[in-house]
Amino acid sequence: MPGPFVHRLRVRYGECDPQGVVFNANFIMYFDVALTELWRETIGRYDAMLEAGTDMVVAEARARYLAPAAFDDELDIEVQITRLGVTGMSTAMSVRRDGATVVEGEMRHVFIDPATKLKKPIPEEIRAAMEPYLAHDSEAAARR
Amino acid sequence: MPGPFVHRLRVRYGECDPQGVVFNANFIMYFDVALTELWRETIGRYDAMLEAGTDMVVAEARARYLAPAAFDDELDIEVQITRLGVTGMSTAMSVRRDGATVVEGEMRHVFIDPATKLKKPIPEEIRAAMEPYLAHDSEAAARR
Amino acid sequence: MPGPFVHRLRVRYGECDPQGVVFNANFIMYFDVALTELWRETIGRYDAMLEAGTDMVVAEARARYLAPAAFDDELDIEVQITRLGVTGMSTAMSVRRDGATVVEGEMRHVFIDPATKLKKPIPEEIRAAMEPYLAHDSEAAARR
Amino acid sequence: MPGPFVHRLRVRYGECDPQGVVFNANFIMYFDVALTELWRETIGRYDAMLEAGTDMVVAEARARYLAPAAFDDELDIEVQITRLGVTGMSTAMSVRRDGATVVEGEMRHVFIDPATKLKKPIPEEIRAAMEPYLAHDSEAAARR
Repeated sequence: MPGPFVHRLRVRYGECDPQGVVFNANFIMYFDVALTELWRETIGRYDAMLEAGTDMVVAEARARYLAPAAFDDELDIEVQITRLGVTGMSTAMSVRRDGATVVEGEMRHVFIDPATKLKKPIPEEIRAAMEPYLAHDSEAAARR
Repeated sequence: MPGPFVHRLRVRYGECDPQGVVFNANFIMYFDVALTELWRETIGRYDAMLEAGTDMVVAEARARYLAPAAFDDELDIEVQITRLGVTGMSTAMSVRRDGATVVEGEMRHVFIDPATKLKKPIPEEIRAAMEPYLAHDSEAAARR
Repeated sequence: MPGPFVHRLRVRYGECDPQGVVFNANFIMYFDVALTELWRETIGRYDAMLEAGTDMVVAEARARYLAPAAFDDELDIEVQITRLGVTGMSTAMSVRRDGATVVEGEMRHVFIDPATKLKKPIPEEIRAAMEPYLAHDSEAAARR
Repeated sequence: MPGPFVHRLRVRYGECDPQGVVFNANFIMYFDVALTELWRETIGRYDAMLEAGTDMVVAEARARYLAPAAFDDELDIEVQITRLGVTGMSTAMSVRRDGATVVEGEMRHVFIDPATKLKKPIPEEIRAAMEPYLAHDSEAAARR
């Protein structure tokens, strides 16, 4: 079983605001970047999924800001899958700097057919690839 | 008593993603824009508050995506203050296009002293200016 | 003959960087916004042009930063068309605050067929709609 | 003498627009990211320069778009310093994907005192650190 998935990125100047810290909305963008990288590790290129007739849309996003992050900081974004439903997937995000949590959040995605934009069940190969990253520990469950 | 505060904006091309719709994180940015405009109507320029020794930081942001918004769409962002605590303020956001809700969300801000970055009580003149926009209706309460 | 086209916008918090001023790349985004609004005034919705089988891509963008712009500033972006070629269009942008120029720039676009992505001549109805905004004065020519 | 400085980054979903390619203004942001990384290699953290009483502001930015870049593409951004003046520095940027150039550009920065915002000569230690990256070859000169 793999460990938790973590993507590291460095805060860019243009992502910071006049308070000198990452503008709040950009953490939701960071969540999206980390999820893309989890995708790459488990499924491959996002485009390949699209070409195979499956897309995802965001149904919900949430972030709790515990501490600021500044320009040039290296951030570790941990992604845990907390639910794999019939058509939906929930994830828990934890952004850390030097081991200290700066932002926590959650996202919920729904799988759709890109042609019709209608919900569709998560394809079996995606479910199988994602299951090893499904959180079973009480900590992640408590965080929800 | 004033009606609910609504700010209208038009979706920009660079705010949309390859799905042809507003990138999810940008709605959190729209919330921030609408709150700035509520500020302008009630308190005046944000900078004036800063110069008077008070700043705000975001503690929490949340969005539920009900329908997509596209390039060139005009969006109405309604902001309701749902809680004025000792040091914190909660707001409920509703983004509509032609009267239909596309995104709902909430933000929670904490007032700080910009010099020390420590929490401070909401100044009385800000509280007085905000109170007329405090939601008392059951609809906003139910939405939380 | 119409006067020069001017679009006014207000600087958003998340568009400013830790220097407290608009992040440099965002002025290129402002140019794009202003051009969209010129489009709306002359041609209509950008999407209608797309559906009629014509799209535009950017071939070149340039900005000279003369003075900073800050959060909450209202900026007037003047767009002048400086050249209407067979397949390409050049524009000159001038961003002013209270009448003082803060940024000047130019863009060059090429018209394409969205299906093939190949260059195509500017459609006659677009050329006719744009010609009144074509700069003939020596000031705009000198600025290039 | 070091080789040319190259920074690799991966295109993010939110940086792409409804045409499915990187939104034009974001390449100017990429230039800024690459320059920050050159800074890190030669001088160290940007903040250290700030604390030592020197800041930089952008005076000019330019980009020529030769080919589109898409979501998930890995881009190599080469930065060459083309001029080290008394108070200003010019750079040439070349963005490549799999060796093929997609965007070329230039930036010009001016060194300032962050307290007074006035121009100041490039500090000697910065000049010394940058000189190895100063382009002497005819290719870079021709590109200007």
